Amino acid sequence: MRKVYLDNAATTPVLPEVRQTMLPYLDELFGNPSSLHDWGDAAREALAASRNQVARLIGATGNDVTFTSCGTESNNLAVKGLALARQKKGKHLVVSAIEHFSVMHSARTLEKMGFELSLVPVDKYGAVDPAEVRRRLRPDTVLVSIMMANNEVGTLQPIKEIGRITKEHEIVFHTDAVAAAGQLEISVDDLGVDALSLAGNQLYGPKGGAALWVRKGVRILPQLDGGIQEEGRRPGTENIAAIVGLGKAAELAKDNLADRAKQMSRLRNRLLKELPPRLGHTDVTGHPTNRLPGNASFVTHFIEGEAMLMLLNSKGIAVSSGSACTSRALKASHVLSAMEVADELAQGSIVFSLGIDTNDDDIDYVLEMMPPVVERLRQMSPLYAKYVK
Amino acid sequence: MRKVYLDNAATTPVLPEVRQTMLPYLDELFGNPSSLHDWGDAAREALAASRNQVARLIGATGNDVTFTSCGTESNNLAVKGLALARQKKGKHLVVSAIEHFSVMHSARTLEKMGFELSLVPVDKYGAVDPAEVRRRLRPDTVLVSIMMANNEVGTLQPIKEIGRITKEHEIVFHTDAVAAAGQLEISVDDLGVDALSLAGNQLYGPKGGAALWVRKGVRILPQLDGGIQEEGRRPGTENIAAIVGLGKAAELAKDNLADRAKQMSRLRNRLLKELPPRLGHTDVTGHPTNRLPGNASFVTHFIEGEAMLMLLNSKGIAVSSGSACTSRALKASHVLSAMEVADELAQGSIVFSLGIDTNDDDIDYVLEMMPPVVERLRQMSPLYAKYVK
Repeated sequence: MRKVYLDNAATTPVLPEVRQTMLPYLDELFGNPSSLHDWGDAAREALAASRNQVARLIGATGNDVTFTSCGTESNNLAVKGLALARQKKGKHLVVSAIEHFSVMHSARTLEKMGFELSLVPVDKYGAVDPAEVRRRLRPDTVLVSIMMANNEVGTLQPIKEIGRITKEHEIVFHTDAVAAAGQLEISVDDLGVDALSLAGNQLYGPKGGAALWVRKGVRILPQLDGGIQEEGRRPGTENIAAIVGLGKAAELAKDNLADRAKQMSRLRNRLLKELPPRLGHTDVTGHPTNRLPGNASFVTHFIEGEAMLMLLNSKGIAVSSGSACTSRALKASHVLSAMEVADELAQGSIVFSLGIDTNDDDIDYVLEMMPPVVERLRQMSPLYAKYVK
Repeated sequence: MRKVYLDNAATTPVLPEVRQTMLPYLDELFGNPSSLHDWGDAAREALAASRNQVARLIGATGNDVTFTSCGTESNNLAVKGLALARQKKGKHLVVSAIEHFSVMHSARTLEKMGFELSLVPVDKYGAVDPAEVRRRLRPDTVLVSIMMANNEVGTLQPIKEIGRITKEHEIVFHTDAVAAAGQLEISVDDLGVDALSLAGNQLYGPKGGAALWVRKGVRILPQLDGGIQEEGRRPGTENIAAIVGLGKAAELAKDNLADRAKQMSRLRNRLLKELPPRLGHTDVTGHPTNRLPGNASFVTHFIEGEAMLMLLNSKGIAVSSGSACTSRALKASHVLSAMEVADELAQGSIVFSLGIDTNDDDIDYVLEMMPPVVERLRQMSPLYAKYVK
């Protein structure tokens, strides 16, 4: 059976070049970068090189990149670390209603610690209106965190416009670019952000290698206690192999960004256009055009996303019904709720996230599988059968 | 030049079998274990198998193992997670004066949050007296954290005796076994601990794979916010390759523990006995016999550990002058201070940590290099030259 992996938002495969770059660090170059001997030196040099590669992807400088173990950790460090470093100045946060749970729940944790939280709503496409951000700013606002692109519905956010507002008000601005990095051009100066999270396993690097960039001079409190690694911002022995892999993946992403995005966008547009008529009673979620190149997301009436996912899996096709991080929670997505998609409809969420190796044959195969899937859905769901002919 | 790596306490190399086990997870088996399709299933199965391998190393069951990114994270999760889950019951902690900074500084962070901290002193060998732990327990004590073996001086701690006391007082007991796991036999039931930290990169597994075991029924609060991975205890996409490597390394450690320990102890004893007379004005630190099989640590008068480290490095020998996690802090070790080693002497700390592949030739080579090292030290240090003939 053909295998088509369209769940790159959950995690991407590791590119062969990335893997090749990592291997020596699982072998002879195993030193601890904190060690002062030759073994440590080799690891330390690799760390510095990766820092520069990651920085280049986002138009920054290497010194301001801190390595973490995953996107979730980067977002925790950003939201808690930036807010707690400013709590004497104020205890008010502004985040969007569609943030990944690593941002959202970090903000909720701060709320329990005495911070106040203002949620910025989104429109029906899942987009934040910068004016809504501005409206929520207060003299005691110390942090705004708005994601660059939503991981479930793909909608791009007006980061540059928000950056202008936060700059004007001298408020620190973090963006979660975990879903965006590797798919969108990023320049932290152009965007006007002060901190940015990204993760290797979303851009064809390994799991275990992620980063938080923080603008020079912006204070942040570490969220792990221990040694003095990463300038004290993130103690713990650095996962050199994963960091080197992240660096290489960032380099490849930077060098091939335009081509990758162009190819993915074209195939995504095919899915957005050709899938709904084949599946029936299916709506596109997220913005029709202003969305991640790789994201094609839908809601199907009368059917649960999980059932759809299982059916597609039985045809060799991997997709998700929302964020992998909450796949087992069996709750309607907070992203779709924020977009005012009705709960019962949100249960029918299905997300195709295309990769850099996705091709027309893959899309053809998905579309060809729709008639048997529809037939099976008709058998499974009386409601679906009633409405979909 | 011969290369002799005797800094296994900083990090161990990755065993070829471990590396081999990891490779498929950087390649075709790249799925996210939270994904509900075939790719996710494969990753999820690997995760469960690794959990069992890790559990077996410490005489536990897999369900109670949570994977983290490093020993530092395991210790942070343990100390903060266990203490914060009990703060309604009390806000008093007991930790030893020689804990790794990931435990010590976590406790200090809790102190800033309103907890009280009692430090248990150690004797001149770096050993905790269980009676001193008992003396510090109070009705509001909610956590005792004492490491199983010290990473700098190797001294083993009377965990079983302390476990008896904490059980009697119904106080949760965590042990940092990052330095011990893979070198000592561990049975969590026999030791009477409620939580135990370990790290793959200390037992011939990869960096990036570590674990915290928590006894069934013992409440702990997650320290990262996000998705529902690891039963909600540790959100973030699991680093499958590293976790699989940790599992394999744990399996190999379990199966070869006695042989490894026997060989390392013999070679360690050679160093403890034969090195001081060759170097001159050098004392063994830590307990003479009740210490980690791989640890041979010393202080040399009139000379800085860093200088010694550099000289040995120039001969192809890797050692450390204390904990890698604080190698650049240039402060006297808090461990040696707690053992009442004078500050100026503590600056002369030198730690050899042997590995499972260390052999007699390696030790011979180190000993042979002592005369030229001593000659160079005499040139470098007038004081050393004055006293060492």
